[in-house]
Amino acid sequence: MSGNDERRLGDLGERGIQEHLLRPRYGRTEGFGDDSALLGAVSTPSELVATTDSCPTPVVNLLREPDLYHAGWLLATINLSDLAAAGAEPLGLVVNYTLPKATTVREFERLLDGVDDCCAAHGTKVAGGDIRDGEVVQLTATAVGRCVPGSRLRRSGAGAGDRLLLVGSPGYLWAAALLETGQAALPEPDRAEVWRRACRPVAQLEAGRLLAAAGYARAAMDVSDGLFATVRTLCEANGLGAAVTGRFTLDALPAEVARQCGLAPFTLAQTWGDWGLVVAVGAADVRVVTKTLREEGIGAQEIGVLTADGGLTAGTAPWEGIAQERFSASSWHGGDVSTLVTDVLGGPVA
Amino acid sequence: MSGNDERRLGDLGERGIQEHLLRPRYGRTEGFGDDSALLGAVSTPSELVATTDSCPTPVVNLLREPDLYHAGWLLATINLSDLAAAGAEPLGLVVNYTLPKATTVREFERLLDGVDDCCAAHGTKVAGGDIRDGEVVQLTATAVGRCVPGSRLRRSGAGAGDRLLLVGSPGYLWAAALLETGQAALPEPDRAEVWRRACRPVAQLEAGRLLAAAGYARAAMDVSDGLFATVRTLCEANGLGAAVTGRFTLDALPAEVARQCGLAPFTLAQTWGDWGLVVAVGAADVRVVTKTLREEGIGAQEIGVLTADGGLTAGTAPWEGIAQERFSASSWHGGDVSTLVTDVLGGPVA
Repeated sequence: MSGNDERRLGDLGERGIQEHLLRPRYGRTEGFGDDSALLGAVSTPSELVATTDSCPTPVVNLLREPDLYHAGWLLATINLSDLAAAGAEPLGLVVNYTLPKATTVREFERLLDGVDDCCAAHGTKVAGGDIRDGEVVQLTATAVGRCVPGSRLRRSGAGAGDRLLLVGSPGYLWAAALLETGQAALPEPDRAEVWRRACRPVAQLEAGRLLAAAGYARAAMDVSDGLFATVRTLCEANGLGAAVTGRFTLDALPAEVARQCGLAPFTLAQTWGDWGLVVAVGAADVRVVTKTLREEGIGAQEIGVLTADGGLTAGTAPWEGIAQERFSASSWHGGDVSTLVTDVLGGPVA
Repeated sequence: MSGNDERRLGDLGERGIQEHLLRPRYGRTEGFGDDSALLGAVSTPSELVATTDSCPTPVVNLLREPDLYHAGWLLATINLSDLAAAGAEPLGLVVNYTLPKATTVREFERLLDGVDDCCAAHGTKVAGGDIRDGEVVQLTATAVGRCVPGSRLRRSGAGAGDRLLLVGSPGYLWAAALLETGQAALPEPDRAEVWRRACRPVAQLEAGRLLAAAGYARAAMDVSDGLFATVRTLCEANGLGAAVTGRFTLDALPAEVARQCGLAPFTLAQTWGDWGLVVAVGAADVRVVTKTLREEGIGAQEIGVLTADGGLTAGTAPWEGIAQERFSASSWHGGDVSTLVTDVLGGPVA
C-alpha cells in the first residue's frame, strides 16, 4: 500500500517510479514499457480521431483542499469530452505529466487513481504515457478514438432552422461553488451529491456515439469554455446566428441553489465545468432525440434555434455571455474563490 | 508575412491566434477547428500505437541563440522516434503547447515551422492540437501510428546470442557542442554540416518499418537517454546482459572532432541526441540487415551481443556509461554549456 507514502518522487527516480509505482498498476497493459503504447487493434474500416488538452486547476481544488485525484479525473474528462463531440468510441488515453520532484508518492497515486477511475467509468483506459520532473505541475493527455466512416460529428454541417440541444446536466460545478462559499445551503446529503457531481464530471461519450450512429446530429461541440463560447463558435463554424430561449431546466439541486441565490437558471446553466454537448439537430428530430437520450438517463433539452442572420440572442435581447478565452484576461488559471464566482456568473450574487 | 511580427500572443488572444496564425497554416487539414482532430482513415486491420513526449531544452539552443524552430523540430523527432522503435507508420502528430502571453508571433511561427518541417521530412503532419498560456514554455506532443498486426516491435523478444545493432549516425550533437565550445575546429562547410545534423535529428522511421516488415528485429528501442541507458533497459526487458565491443565507427566529421579532443569514438557514440535505434537481431541476419539498411542510406553497425549472464561489459571491462534519468540529479533541463559537455562525455575533454 502506498496510500500514505510520503516519499518524494525525486527519492525514487524515474526507474524507481517505473518499477514501484507504474509497473504494479499498468504492467499488464500490453505494450507497457515499450517506446510506443498499444492503443488497440482495429479490424474494420475506421476514421481515427485524436484530441489533446491540458488540465487547468480544478475549481473544486480551490473550494476545498487540493487533491490531485480531482485533477486526474478532470484531465481524462476534458479529453474524452472532445471525443464525445466527434461521436467517437475511445481507444485509449496517453498521458503526459510534469511534476515537481517534491511530489509525494501519495499525491502521485491520487493523480493516477483519478485518471484511471475516470477512464474506467467511461469504458476506456490509460494506454501509456510519459512523466518528467519540472518546477510546475503540468498535466496533459491525448485521447484517441475511432468513428465509423461517415458518421464523425463536426462543428460544421448545421443549417438555419436546426435546433440546438444541450446534452448533459449543467450547473453542478458552480452550484457547488455557491454552496462552498456560503451563498446557498442544502441539507447534507444533497450538498454531498452536488459536490460529487462537481468533482466527477462525465464526458457525454454515450450520447455522442448514439447521436452519430443514428445520424441525428448535424453538428456538435462540447461545452468546455461556457455555453456562450460554445454556441458562438458553433455558429461561426456554420456561418449562422442563434436565438437561445434563455429558458433552461436545471436538475432539482442546482435549481434550488440558483433560486436561493436569486439567479435565473439560464445564468447557472451557461457556466462551464459540466462538460455537456451542444448539438444541432433537424427540427423534426428534436422530439425523438431528446426522448432517446432521456431513456438512456442522459439530460437533453432544446435551448434554441440556429438562424440565418448571424446574431446571437437570448430571449429578446442580444446575448453577451461569459466566455473564457486562452491568451486573454479571462484565461482560467485558478485564482481567488470569492471573486471567481462573481466573474463566472457575470456579476455579484444576491 | 509574419516573419518579423513582434506582436505578442497575448495581444491576439486565443481566437486571434486561431484565425490569423493557425487557420492559414492548418485550415485545410480536415477536422481543423473541430473538438477532435482527424488522424486519418484506416481500412485494413491495424494495431494502433501512440507515444507522448515533452520537449526538453534543445542543446543547440544553449550553444547558439535560442530558436523555437529547433525545439519544434526536436519535439516532432522525439515522438516520431518512439514510433520508429515500434516499426510503426505515423498517422499524425497532436501537439500541445503552453506558451507565455509575451511570446511573439515570430517566435510562435518559428515553433510551428520547426514542427511542420520535421513532420513533412518524415512523411507525416500535425493533425491537431491545443495551445494555452502559462508562465513556462512547455511543448508536448503525441504521435499516433499503425503497425501491421503481428509486426509491432517491442523492447522484449530478444534472446541470448542476438546481436545488437545501432541504427543511425551517432555523435553529431555532441560533436557540435565540442565545436561550438572551441574544443575542436573544422573548416566552415564541415562545421556547418555538423551543426545542421545536430539541429535536425532524424527519427529512424524508415529503418523501423523496414526491420518490422522483414521480421528481422527481435527487439528494438530508441536511444533517447544515451546508449548505455538504452542497452541497459533493453537488457532488463529481456532478462539478459550485453557485451558491447566498445569499437564504434563514427561518420567522418564526428570522428575528426573526437580525434581532436582525444576522445574514443565509443565515448562520443554513446551520448544522446541523435535518436538512433538499438535493435536486437539474430546472429545469422546481421549481415543482410546492415547491408539492407546501408543500401537505403541508413547507418547501421553491430555493437555487441546479448548475453545470458546479466552483466553489461564494454570490451573487457564493466560498462558504466552515461545515462540521464528523470527525477534524478542527471535529469536534463538545460544548464551551463561548459559543464554540460564534461557531464555528458563522462569527464573533462583533453
